[in-house]
Amino acid sequence: MALVVQKFGGTSVANAERIGEVADHVARCRRRGDDVVLVVSAMGKETDELLRLADEVSTTQPGREMDLLITAGERKACALVAMALNDAGVPSASFTGSQAGFITDANHRNAKILEINPYRVREAIDAGMVPIVAGSQGVSTEKDVTFLGRGGSDTTAVALASVLDADACELYTDVSGVFTTDPRVVSTARKMPQISFDELLEMTAVGCPKPAMRSVEVARTYRVPLHVRSAFTWEPGTWVVEEDPDMEQAVVSAVVPDTSEAKVTVSGVPDEPGIAAGLFRALAEAGVNVDMIVQNVSIDHGVTDISFTCPKGDAATATSITESRFAEHECTVITDDSIGRVSLVGAGMKSNPGVAATMFETLAEASINIEMISTSAIRISCAVRADDVDRATQVLHDAFDLG
Amino acid sequence: MALVVQKFGGTSVANAERIGEVADHVARCRRRGDDVVLVVSAMGKETDELLRLADEVSTTQPGREMDLLITAGERKACALVAMALNDAGVPSASFTGSQAGFITDANHRNAKILEINPYRVREAIDAGMVPIVAGSQGVSTEKDVTFLGRGGSDTTAVALASVLDADACELYTDVSGVFTTDPRVVSTARKMPQISFDELLEMTAVGCPKPAMRSVEVARTYRVPLHVRSAFTWEPGTWVVEEDPDMEQAVVSAVVPDTSEAKVTVSGVPDEPGIAAGLFRALAEAGVNVDMIVQNVSIDHGVTDISFTCPKGDAATATSITESRFAEHECTVITDDSIGRVSLVGAGMKSNPGVAATMFETLAEASINIEMISTSAIRISCAVRADDVDRATQVLHDAFDLG
Repeated sequence: MALVVQKFGGTSVANAERIGEVADHVARCRRRGDDVVLVVSAMGKETDELLRLADEVSTTQPGREMDLLITAGERKACALVAMALNDAGVPSASFTGSQAGFITDANHRNAKILEINPYRVREAIDAGMVPIVAGSQGVSTEKDVTFLGRGGSDTTAVALASVLDADACELYTDVSGVFTTDPRVVSTARKMPQISFDELLEMTAVGCPKPAMRSVEVARTYRVPLHVRSAFTWEPGTWVVEEDPDMEQAVVSAVVPDTSEAKVTVSGVPDEPGIAAGLFRALAEAGVNVDMIVQNVSIDHGVTDISFTCPKGDAATATSITESRFAEHECTVITDDSIGRVSLVGAGMKSNPGVAATMFETLAEASINIEMISTSAIRISCAVRADDVDRATQVLHDAFDLG
Repeated sequence: MALVVQKFGGTSVANAERIGEVADHVARCRRRGDDVVLVVSAMGKETDELLRLADEVSTTQPGREMDLLITAGERKACALVAMALNDAGVPSASFTGSQAGFITDANHRNAKILEINPYRVREAIDAGMVPIVAGSQGVSTEKDVTFLGRGGSDTTAVALASVLDADACELYTDVSGVFTTDPRVVSTARKMPQISFDELLEMTAVGCPKPAMRSVEVARTYRVPLHVRSAFTWEPGTWVVEEDPDMEQAVVSAVVPDTSEAKVTVSGVPDEPGIAAGLFRALAEAGVNVDMIVQNVSIDHGVTDISFTCPKGDAATATSITESRFAEHECTVITDDSIGRVSLVGAGMKSNPGVAATMFETLAEASINIEMISTSAIRISCAVRADDVDRATQVLHDAFDLG
């Protein structure tokens, strides 16, 4: 008898019919003899709808109030799923973030979990019930309602699976697993039966939208076996597991396209120690999530160029911080919204130095210009024109025989 | 400097524009020097919408889950009003029922307040802020979320005004006060500048929809000065006050029409002690809210007739309980959905015995048949055909010169 934490995303509980299917699925799992704990997100597009309401009434949008507003969505879904399960003959009980024991910091809109005291959830399991926990929420050390951020329900599920010592955490979503690339871009994209934590973490860091990166970090740290799968087909999805040293590693596992970032370039920066540090400290303090950073080598004149990418939504802030930072120098700051990125991810890359060369050659043959490069042990990312991202993804997927 | 608790109903916070007007009004009150505490209901028809969702997913609808679902509505409204106030330059903070210290029993869907520990609300007032409390909710002794029932936001406001020792409790709604009768039925209906707690309590008990009867009971018990007024015109409404022995009392203050009840009649009941008691105990245990009761005098044969009214929604339950109760006797149970009621309410009635006679004569002259009669010290109610209720209201309003 296994204990499984199952997380259902917004599309999986979007309406009464879908909620009924979730209830049927949970009833089947129980008949197989498994103990189940559910984590649910807000229904469909409800979080977007709540944010739209907030935009209508307020420009200041204090974080404490935003969190009370947004978390109402998960509470609704949680109550409705609990009712549907009850109707399906499965004894169940809903738990808000606070009731499930999620204590967070007071960093509203993006709170971090400090500790989890899930004694009510455990009591419910022991009583033969299915606990249903509202995703992405908790109560702060100040006793206020907190929201863990977009995609936070994945984090709730993984953290709960860890603290309950669950046998697996299943993330049910609107895709049927993790693919070798975006199937909307490349028709030969293939669902991977398994992937390592490290690979998935790199993929989510460079634009793979699901599951949420934070949840993969938590799963990797606490070694929670993850299963990413579909709530529409119910077929087996992708298992995310520890890297097996004996398993034959694909050199490249996946190609990840991304067009969510913008590039900011500042030219004519004095080539002095501490200049870059000062800029990126200021950006970090403003909450700008800087991703790729490239600083060109200063050849002469004692000046250099710095380029970085960040989410498009942060680009205006990043640009004005950069401009004011270098206001007293003769620098030029240019923002580029038409940047894109394509990344190769694969655990086997570590021992295969030829991957980068093949990647650059493949892009060159397709006449795609590389504007920035960044690498990790198991990833190579190239910034290219946004218009070239789909084609770059296609040729790389073919070049590494991922189909 | 007064402390005022202001409650805003669903229509008063139905959309961003209305929420903005509430914020402007509160800002004005603050500039006048008053301390303000807000209580808000769910936006517009949101509670109905949540109930519809529950109907879609569940027929069992466990109370604990229903309460988690429904209370999400008030939390949303609360957060949005807090944001709007912040934008209007008024420092404010939202409080859920639990955060505001509302401890209730565990009677889900219709919980009763056991105690209120509003220390966070007091701290906010002392810090110069406007606390905004989510209406109609609390936390049970079992640490679960509870809902105080429809109209519960009025009760939240009055109870909070009492425990904070506020100078007044203002109930802002979509009517501009308490009227001598329903203005939709009688065009000469007049807004009363004041009314006694006893009179308003009688009126709400026989169908006057606003404010909620429970809130009037609490206000009457704790002597909280109530002001029923409009969030659309902002004009002075009706003050609900203690009866002033010197104040010249109108014999009849108001005519209250009502078509929300059904009548159940059981004929051929054995005329034995305990028969009626057994029936009404069984109805009470099933949660049927019985209102008027008439038992005809038994003339011969040792049998009698019992008629009672109850909300139309309870009629089916009441009928089946009555039928099973008398299954072994030769009784006939008849349910009548076309019953209506018209009531006269007035503190001066106590010392004016002619009111009943005038009422019956007036109805007789209009050829309206009286089917049941019930009275209290300051009220007379007559059950009539539902089709006759509007005409009965009109002729009685004229007969007692209330226009």
